[in-house]
Amino acid sequence: MRTIDWVDGAIVIVDQTALPGQAVLVRLSTVEDLVDAVRRLAVRGAPALGVAGAMGVALAARQHSADGEALAHAVRVIATARPTAVNLARGAQRAAALLPDAEAALAEALRVRDEEIASAEAMARLGADLVTELCGERATLLTHCNTGALATVTGGTALAVVFELHRRAALGGVVASETRPLLQGARLTAWELGNAGVPFRLAVDSAGPFLMARGQVDAVILGADRICANGDVINKVGSYAHALGARAAGIPFICVAPESTVDLATPSGDAVEIEDRGAAEVVAFGGVPVAPAGAAAVNPAFDVTPHPLVTAIVTDRRVVRLDRGDQVR
Amino acid sequence: MRTIDWVDGAIVIVDQTALPGQAVLVRLSTVEDLVDAVRRLAVRGAPALGVAGAMGVALAARQHSADGEALAHAVRVIATARPTAVNLARGAQRAAALLPDAEAALAEALRVRDEEIASAEAMARLGADLVTELCGERATLLTHCNTGALATVTGGTALAVVFELHRRAALGGVVASETRPLLQGARLTAWELGNAGVPFRLAVDSAGPFLMARGQVDAVILGADRICANGDVINKVGSYAHALGARAAGIPFICVAPESTVDLATPSGDAVEIEDRGAAEVVAFGGVPVAPAGAAAVNPAFDVTPHPLVTAIVTDRRVVRLDRGDQVR
Repeated sequence: MRTIDWVDGAIVIVDQTALPGQAVLVRLSTVEDLVDAVRRLAVRGAPALGVAGAMGVALAARQHSADGEALAHAVRVIATARPTAVNLARGAQRAAALLPDAEAALAEALRVRDEEIASAEAMARLGADLVTELCGERATLLTHCNTGALATVTGGTALAVVFELHRRAALGGVVASETRPLLQGARLTAWELGNAGVPFRLAVDSAGPFLMARGQVDAVILGADRICANGDVINKVGSYAHALGARAAGIPFICVAPESTVDLATPSGDAVEIEDRGAAEVVAFGGVPVAPAGAAAVNPAFDVTPHPLVTAIVTDRRVVRLDRGDQVR
Repeated sequence: MRTIDWVDGAIVIVDQTALPGQAVLVRLSTVEDLVDAVRRLAVRGAPALGVAGAMGVALAARQHSADGEALAHAVRVIATARPTAVNLARGAQRAAALLPDAEAALAEALRVRDEEIASAEAMARLGADLVTELCGERATLLTHCNTGALATVTGGTALAVVFELHRRAALGGVVASETRPLLQGARLTAWELGNAGVPFRLAVDSAGPFLMARGQVDAVILGADRICANGDVINKVGSYAHALGARAAGIPFICVAPESTVDLATPSGDAVEIEDRGAAEVVAFGGVPVAPAGAAAVNPAFDVTPHPLVTAIVTDRRVVRLDRGDQVR
């Protein structure tokens, strides 16, 4: 099963808001459908968003074939549906570069999809080799958010490394942080790990650094929404706190993401706009209100892990050992 | 309204599991009632647990007046109802030292209660002075878990400092971390801050370190369940991650707790048993499952903040400036 694909003239996605209860396929036939799915995180994860951006432009080309202005507007709406995700805009731009040729835009979107599938396999191999080099056999890895097949087309990024280590019988176990507010760890990562038979324990997000301090974690491995030119990593909120915990415990902090996540146009994380997703996600839990009515919240969707805290970045093409002075650019 | 009190021969508590939806008073007439209330966190917070321990022994003395062995057993059950809370055992021991004299045990329990009320006032004053000294006027403080009136009898510990700064018009605002898994921040702290008219924003636990890095927090202020002889602080899980964030951002990390929380018999946090409260709290919330059925979890209720990360400890009697080399012992 592919998380996102092009089927009979429309995008088909696995709706991630319905997991782990149900695996529902949703058909997105218009730009409006696609943008709504991106905003409510029915499709998410940097690589999957790249495909969504490109396929969204292919949809737009069919929808607005007679109106160049409407088409240009639709491309802008798609590219900016979530402000922090570089892959979304980049996928959209790749397909948009071929407009107004709708067939060429679609062909480019399918190339983006196929490249993401191949890149997941390459990351799994490179990342598994690195974990074994750094931690030896049977390491226990802590991962944050969801970086599995559900964040890509198939396979995953950081979780693809976990699956590869499991296949090699070289994995001790996994601690999956639940990833508030939307619980991608509890809902999606736990579902994928369970399906694959990988031994795991869930933890609340703030327990990670303490578990590291008590020697229960050998390395942190997670994804990235954007990698800056200096090696700063923009990823799901909570990544930075885990990086501080890893540094204090003296264990590796490994970031796995396709080369398409590297954004040399962004010199560092300091200037990156971090999306605030509003109070609604924080004041309720799994649909159950938890805070008093009307409570305000600050809800950054991502955070910035400064490059000195990052041991290595694994892409589909290379392993950047920041701890040894390697450079991303 | 007192969070815990002795009324007509029984303990009366505000049931904190019903907040913020309802403020329900519950009457605890037997040791079994009390132990159940402690275990399900209907009464919680180090100072309130000290009162609960002492009043629990007063209940036991009435319930088992004719059977010394049953009474001794009941005292042990009360003292160990939650393994990490030093105040619970200490409150129980203070009342138990006067057994089998039930009236004397009750009088001692009422003294524990009155001391906690006085101590909250002293902490508020000392803590507010310290925050203004360290951060200037109108600081924005991040607090974790609930350390308000609901954690004590009246007033609070760290939150009493917040209320005092608000009364002095010397508070910028509060970031309250939600405190997974039981959401004491979202449910209880938000409720108390709202009632008092203190401006606040909720945040998921893992956002704190990033908000500090972006300059949105001037100091972290929170409570303690146990303070070790070397200054290590045992407190709600997530405290350590916030301490790492505060250190990285160069802002103060202040711990506020009554002198009764200081445990000189525990040399450091390394050896302290940390209660694991099981998977149920992590895999579901409010009856709504969030993880796949049967998912395992690791759920430490507390963590250890090593003393080098603690700027100061404020008790009802003193300010221990660990950052200046002051010693707890």
